[in-house]
Amino acid sequence: MMTHQTTALTNEDFDISGIVQALRDVRLTSLEHRHRKNKPPKLPSRKVLQNVVDGLSAALFPNRLGAPGLKEEGVDYYVGFTLDSALRELNSQIQLELRYSADTDHDKTPSVEAALNKARAFAQTLPKIRQLIDTDLNAAFEGDPAARSLDEVLVCYPGITAIIHYRLAHELHTLGLPLIARIISELAHSATGIDIHPGATIGEGFFIDHGTGVVIGETAVIGHHVRLYQAVTLGAKRFPTDEHGHLIKGSARHPILEDDVVIYAGATVLGRITIGARSVIGGNVWLTRSVPPDSQITQAQSQASIQATAT
Amino acid sequence: MMTHQTTALTNEDFDISGIVQALRDVRLTSLEHRHRKNKPPKLPSRKVLQNVVDGLSAALFPNRLGAPGLKEEGVDYYVGFTLDSALRELNSQIQLELRYSADTDHDKTPSVEAALNKARAFAQTLPKIRQLIDTDLNAAFEGDPAARSLDEVLVCYPGITAIIHYRLAHELHTLGLPLIARIISELAHSATGIDIHPGATIGEGFFIDHGTGVVIGETAVIGHHVRLYQAVTLGAKRFPTDEHGHLIKGSARHPILEDDVVIYAGATVLGRITIGARSVIGGNVWLTRSVPPDSQITQAQSQASIQATAT
Amino acid sequence: MMTHQTTALTNEDFDISGIVQALRDVRLTSLEHRHRKNKPPKLPSRKVLQNVVDGLSAALFPNRLGAPGLKEEGVDYYVGFTLDSALRELNSQIQLELRYSADTDHDKTPSVEAALNKARAFAQTLPKIRQLIDTDLNAAFEGDPAARSLDEVLVCYPGITAIIHYRLAHELHTLGLPLIARIISELAHSATGIDIHPGATIGEGFFIDHGTGVVIGETAVIGHHVRLYQAVTLGAKRFPTDEHGHLIKGSARHPILEDDVVIYAGATVLGRITIGARSVIGGNVWLTRSVPPDSQITQAQSQASIQATAT
Amino acid sequence: MMTHQTTALTNEDFDISGIVQALRDVRLTSLEHRHRKNKPPKLPSRKVLQNVVDGLSAALFPNRLGAPGLKEEGVDYYVGFTLDSALRELNSQIQLELRYSADTDHDKTPSVEAALNKARAFAQTLPKIRQLIDTDLNAAFEGDPAARSLDEVLVCYPGITAIIHYRLAHELHTLGLPLIARIISELAHSATGIDIHPGATIGEGFFIDHGTGVVIGETAVIGHHVRLYQAVTLGAKRFPTDEHGHLIKGSARHPILEDDVVIYAGATVLGRITIGARSVIGGNVWLTRSVPPDSQITQAQSQASIQATAT
Amino acid sequence: MMTHQTTALTNEDFDISGIVQALRDVRLTSLEHRHRKNKPPKLPSRKVLQNVVDGLSAALFPNRLGAPGLKEEGVDYYVGFTLDSALRELNSQIQLELRYSADTDHDKTPSVEAALNKARAFAQTLPKIRQLIDTDLNAAFEGDPAARSLDEVLVCYPGITAIIHYRLAHELHTLGLPLIARIISELAHSATGIDIHPGATIGEGFFIDHGTGVVIGETAVIGHHVRLYQAVTLGAKRFPTDEHGHLIKGSARHPILEDDVVIYAGATVLGRITIGARSVIGGNVWLTRSVPPDSQITQAQSQASIQATAT
Amino acid sequence: MMTHQTTALTNEDFDISGIVQALRDVRLTSLEHRHRKNKPPKLPSRKVLQNVVDGLSAALFPNRLGAPGLKEEGVDYYVGFTLDSALRELNSQIQLELRYSADTDHDKTPSVEAALNKARAFAQTLPKIRQLIDTDLNAAFEGDPAARSLDEVLVCYPGITAIIHYRLAHELHTLGLPLIARIISELAHSATGIDIHPGATIGEGFFIDHGTGVVIGETAVIGHHVRLYQAVTLGAKRFPTDEHGHLIKGSARHPILEDDVVIYAGATVLGRITIGARSVIGGNVWLTRSVPPDSQITQAQSQASIQATAT
Repeated sequence: MMTHQTTALTNEDFDISGIVQALRDVRLTSLEHRHRKNKPPKLPSRKVLQNVVDGLSAALFPNRLGAPGLKEEGVDYYVGFTLDSALRELNSQIQLELRYSADTDHDKTPSVEAALNKARAFAQTLPKIRQLIDTDLNAAFEGDPAARSLDEVLVCYPGITAIIHYRLAHELHTLGLPLIARIISELAHSATGIDIHPGATIGEGFFIDHGTGVVIGETAVIGHHVRLYQAVTLGAKRFPTDEHGHLIKGSARHPILEDDVVIYAGATVLGRITIGARSVIGGNVWLTRSVPPDSQITQAQSQASIQATAT
Repeated sequence: MMTHQTTALTNEDFDISGIVQALRDVRLTSLEHRHRKNKPPKLPSRKVLQNVVDGLSAALFPNRLGAPGLKEEGVDYYVGFTLDSALRELNSQIQLELRYSADTDHDKTPSVEAALNKARAFAQTLPKIRQLIDTDLNAAFEGDPAARSLDEVLVCYPGITAIIHYRLAHELHTLGLPLIARIISELAHSATGIDIHPGATIGEGFFIDHGTGVVIGETAVIGHHVRLYQAVTLGAKRFPTDEHGHLIKGSARHPILEDDVVIYAGATVLGRITIGARSVIGGNVWLTRSVPPDSQITQAQSQASIQATAT
Repeated sequence: MMTHQTTALTNEDFDISGIVQALRDVRLTSLEHRHRKNKPPKLPSRKVLQNVVDGLSAALFPNRLGAPGLKEEGVDYYVGFTLDSALRELNSQIQLELRYSADTDHDKTPSVEAALNKARAFAQTLPKIRQLIDTDLNAAFEGDPAARSLDEVLVCYPGITAIIHYRLAHELHTLGLPLIARIISELAHSATGIDIHPGATIGEGFFIDHGTGVVIGETAVIGHHVRLYQAVTLGAKRFPTDEHGHLIKGSARHPILEDDVVIYAGATVLGRITIGARSVIGGNVWLTRSVPPDSQITQAQSQASIQATAT
Repeated sequence: MMTHQTTALTNEDFDISGIVQALRDVRLTSLEHRHRKNKPPKLPSRKVLQNVVDGLSAALFPNRLGAPGLKEEGVDYYVGFTLDSALRELNSQIQLELRYSADTDHDKTPSVEAALNKARAFAQTLPKIRQLIDTDLNAAFEGDPAARSLDEVLVCYPGITAIIHYRLAHELHTLGLPLIARIISELAHSATGIDIHPGATIGEGFFIDHGTGVVIGETAVIGHHVRLYQAVTLGAKRFPTDEHGHLIKGSARHPILEDDVVIYAGATVLGRITIGARSVIGGNVWLTRSVPPDSQITQAQSQASIQATAT
Repeated sequence: MMTHQTTALTNEDFDISGIVQALRDVRLTSLEHRHRKNKPPKLPSRKVLQNVVDGLSAALFPNRLGAPGLKEEGVDYYVGFTLDSALRELNSQIQLELRYSADTDHDKTPSVEAALNKARAFAQTLPKIRQLIDTDLNAAFEGDPAARSLDEVLVCYPGITAIIHYRLAHELHTLGLPLIARIISELAHSATGIDIHPGATIGEGFFIDHGTGVVIGETAVIGHHVRLYQAVTLGAKRFPTDEHGHLIKGSARHPILEDDVVIYAGATVLGRITIGARSVIGGNVWLTRSVPPDSQITQAQSQASIQATAT
Repeated sequence: MMTHQTTALTNEDFDISGIVQALRDVRLTSLEHRHRKNKPPKLPSRKVLQNVVDGLSAALFPNRLGAPGLKEEGVDYYVGFTLDSALRELNSQIQLELRYSADTDHDKTPSVEAALNKARAFAQTLPKIRQLIDTDLNAAFEGDPAARSLDEVLVCYPGITAIIHYRLAHELHTLGLPLIARIISELAHSATGIDIHPGATIGEGFFIDHGTGVVIGETAVIGHHVRLYQAVTLGAKRFPTDEHGHLIKGSARHPILEDDVVIYAGATVLGRITIGARSVIGGNVWLTRSVPPDSQITQAQSQASIQATAT
């Protein structure tokens, strides 16, 4: 029998045992209200996934995001070892997600092979991801007159950090690992202020400048060579409800941006609308209707249309 | 006598001793202009307070924010130990703040008991804080169709990170520890881009989606089940001065949001106005007047009213 | 000969060697498209530069950003040692940048003295930087009624963090080290959401409140005692092209803010315009034309002018 | 196909791929000579077991070997948490040892329960181990006039470090975990120069002073209140072979020391002999025959007997 | 009330709460038998004292045991800062020892000044300690033909490590801090296998070669230019008891070695005897009587004398 | 001018600047007495060499001393990467040693190629070193009835740790890097109490049991399949002087042990004598003359011969 909790508190006590008990009560009540069971499965870990992303980034760009100063004869060993470590860590995180979602959905425990197959499939996409990021780097280099080299872009630009995370997270999302994908997205969000949902579809040569406050929704579709500035939102419209007033889940509700679109800082683009190719959307514009290719929308124009609506 | 600084500089020198001396002169001049004394007391430490918040978060959610894989028989020991460590660290930080503000206000040195009493009072609020955060988790889960479980919300959503920090900081602010409270707020601000003043009053079931750029001012009052999106500002109006042109301190100058209000991305709500219950404020709206319950304010409407004002 | 890659894959394999080879191919193709050579020089390191900034901050403010609890007799030793370490690290980073840009520009390898001279010149500016930051601290203290002491401002305010980084980065930029300067800027950007280009010119007593989403462009010129709130953009206009349609590089394209200007949250100020002294620009204002001293621009006014333009 | 290994070496190469291949050949040859299989199971980890011992020591002596400054209300939480962590780590190490020895002995894979049962049985012995170590502390305190308190003995004396490791290792050895027990012994050996085989049997109140070079063999039996000085060997005789010239394994081959025996520095006691109670063996004595209770053996006497033998 | 400990154990439990309670009972019983009180004061910390020794060593030999690569202009700042940190840490450890021994001796709580005075007095001896160690380095350099430079000796020789610890510990012992001194001795003992009691008196130019197993007792007195090899014991005789059979404490009971004595490996020298100047004691010699200056004692001679005694 | 050192000491001061100055004076005096110059070159670093040895050990035994749980497809990448890192670190240490000894010997600065050639030559010996260590592991396994597998021997036995260090250090010593070799030896000495000079020559299948206190001198020659126990010394005789009384450097002065010799604990074997093949030297024997093959020397016999000498 533990007896110390019955002891009168001394002047120096925090009443630890009383608070532990109260926290325990809240915790049990909360569990009861939710899953009604005692031992929720482990979740994938933010910290481990940060390591995984760091390892994959190093394998993709060994000289720049990996070990500086590698000699040529050592690069492949470095890449192979780093990849091997990162994939094994990722594999264990995939097991956690699969177990967790089986538990949530009351499915039977997933096999170890199921996780391994996903990790393997993901691994095979890495060269393609590298190629895509190369196009993003080029886009940033060409889009920003201040950039002096691709290396600078890779090391300095928060937009690139966000896009690397997105491109990795997107493949994992596509493989049916939404939780891991989301955690990876949030790692980039915290570091850059750029919030790209891993479900979004984004073409080659994507560039985000400055980036703080950018939000890109789950069903957004972005073509090739699109450029966004800080605080651009590609969001859903306010009331995506069905006839019974329920929120519609998973339906296409975010904008489509065709190739070569540019959207300046602070613009808000909402709903399943299409911004035609080569259009330029001005800063702070509020846009909720499709525009044809080669449009140039300024705030005045969008205000005008709003005024019309408003009267 | 130290003599090396009189030596002629060699080709490799940075002139360290010259710079040290110059920095010393600036430092002393600066001190003279301020407090006119030599030894300012220590401030609470950002790094230690990060540990405290991590420890308290772990004690509140041992399985999710603490040690993954705890078995049932070990949970209470983990919570008790983590709590004990965090509270003792917090207690020492409280001593620093009390000493610092006594020094600033030329009060006499505060007693050790004063700090302990505050730490103890704070500790007693932890179960209530856990209950409040449970309502916030529920709000996020219900408010975001993409959320698949409360666990995901707890681990992934930056809004939840910000709210946990806020709820802890708010209790400390209320106990007369504004500096510690502020540092904790800024830890969340840096990690999430969400800036909630610890003095604000926020009801149950609060949800912030995406969150980057949200600013909530010191005297804001937020009811139950309120939802905010990224870049929403609940601020003060521009010129809160008294008749003599001086800034008015501490007066109620931020908005009141009644229950069930929703404010979409980029909206700016300024001044001691009241947003009536169940109102919905559209994206990018600029709002400086009270609105009745069940209002739906869109940008067009607010522009219209601005136009009116403008003419 | 390594032979294991010819072995049939087992059930547990990730096909590491296949992926390593594919990544190698992409990497070599990418190198070919770019610099056509094998061994790009090392870049300055984000992590090392974080240490440098931490060290310099500690040398500038030993009691607050350095080692808490220093006794008077130990301060100068602490400052001298910290400075010495930070400057030697910085010196090695400067060598990397000089070698890198010589390589990019096909210049001959720079001398070790070239780096040392820059490090030395930078070191000499530190006392002046400290004095400038002192004016920034005063501005924050006086500008925010909530601030209770300069110490609190120094430790808590993200705006101050951003400005310290800026003032260090600006000197390095001026010395011809744009890459190091940029990396330091991005460190502050990631921590605070405030993005100040190191090329910008900023006078005494600069204050940014809240700060998330602030962007200040490369050729912006900011006078003394200017105050900005969150999400303010001081940007370039959309199409700074020459007669042949090429982007104009390096030309003055961002706003000039004269002394004592205040710009409220979310305002966007674009192009080489001049905001006259003591002007106040309201929240969310969109401004692309110069305004005379003592102007007070609100959103309504700016909308009105936009309406005029729009018709 | 990896092709870089066929490239001619450059001036900067170490010929990594050649050496990797050569090391691979040696490794495979070595495996062939031994177990003839590819994937030996993991062994228990020295580093993890160091953590386990540290955790158990902290649980046994929370104030002295755990967290200094614990308040009374926090001690049990600390002990419970520390114990829980250490036992779970130990459990995983036990699984490794059981799997490893099943593999070595070609047994079937052991059950998870088998490990858990051993961990549980071990855990139950901890209070008894604490009591025994208390007697050892008392013995050191009483045996060394220089010792001022039990606390000093616990924190300073290498003999106590060695005995704590021994007492933990001995229980694990008894439970059929010779490899984990041995690794724990070697941790003490490396830290103190004292080498006690975990199979030895040692009574209450054991004290080793200075200790460097002490060796105690597997089948040694040591009574209560025995005291040893540095460089004492309790070893086996030279030729413990059977009639066929084979080494005899596991038979009792080390000395028996009855209660209250004292052995001074450098003495060598070999073979299954019995040192009678209360005997004192002098420094550097070489002893290979039993002596009755209350004997006092000096080097001269032992030399004398050796001389007799030698002639 | 905590209730989980009454729950039946599940298959996965370690019975943590049962063991915690049993350990608590042993702990309380042990406390009762000893000091009969609940809260023993903190002891000085092994880990902190390791830092202190590392810091002091770095201050004594900044280029070799401190920060490699210091430039001349930075050395004094490094030394001053390192010294300041180490002395402040040491000061806090001295406070702990003084409080602890006041508590043990039932004295009144010692003043903060008492600790500071000791720290200050110790600090003043550092230059003298450096000079002494310089003589030790010279002795090693001259005594070992293999040594190529003083730097090598300083960095490689375990004997020098042990002597540096001893010279620091000896001053602290002399200042009335036996516990801190002892812990520092044991740090060297663990790293080198050399056990020098901090109470011993050792002259200039002391050299220990190889060193493992050397033991030097509390009241040993060693002249200038003495050389010892591995496994030499300078100990007390076996029965230093008074007429009532009690151990005599603190009396002079270890050997005196006059200047220029050499003692080879494994020799044992016991009791308050004097080894005359320039004597050479051979390997494995057992010596318990004084010898005149310039003696050369080999094992044969000492055996002979023992034989004589033995007959 | 730094002025604080002229300030009167306050009650809290340690007189840092006074001590810094005094230490500086001692340091300069010491430099003057030695090399008469200001800036001694850097020495190889103990800490870096520990990393190098850890890396090389991991490359030699990837599954046991490297990364547990490697899958087959990952092993070569791990070995290649680990080797590459360790060799590059070693290379930089070799540069330091070469520069240091050029400086000491007043030679001209050595070329970067000189270091690289040595590193490369060393790297080529690694497969042979692995093969030798395999024979040592076999010897330990066969020599100790308690050993259950080669893996246990590799992980547990301090003798193996010492031999791995020796075999690496010996190759480096042979390549003309005595300082690096010595530092590596001392790392093993500190961890195991076994002191093997890197200059010694040791054949296949070498086994040291227990090991504390073993010392093996620079010119010792040890054949195949030799076994030593704790505290064995293979040393030089006392007076290896030439006709002028000077110590003879580098001459063969330590014993030769032919194949299959066994030497029991505590035996001391001194001088350039030869122990014939298959001889067994008993515990504590003192031996200074050669013995023919198949000798069995016990302490009695050696004493007898000493007696003869003594008379």
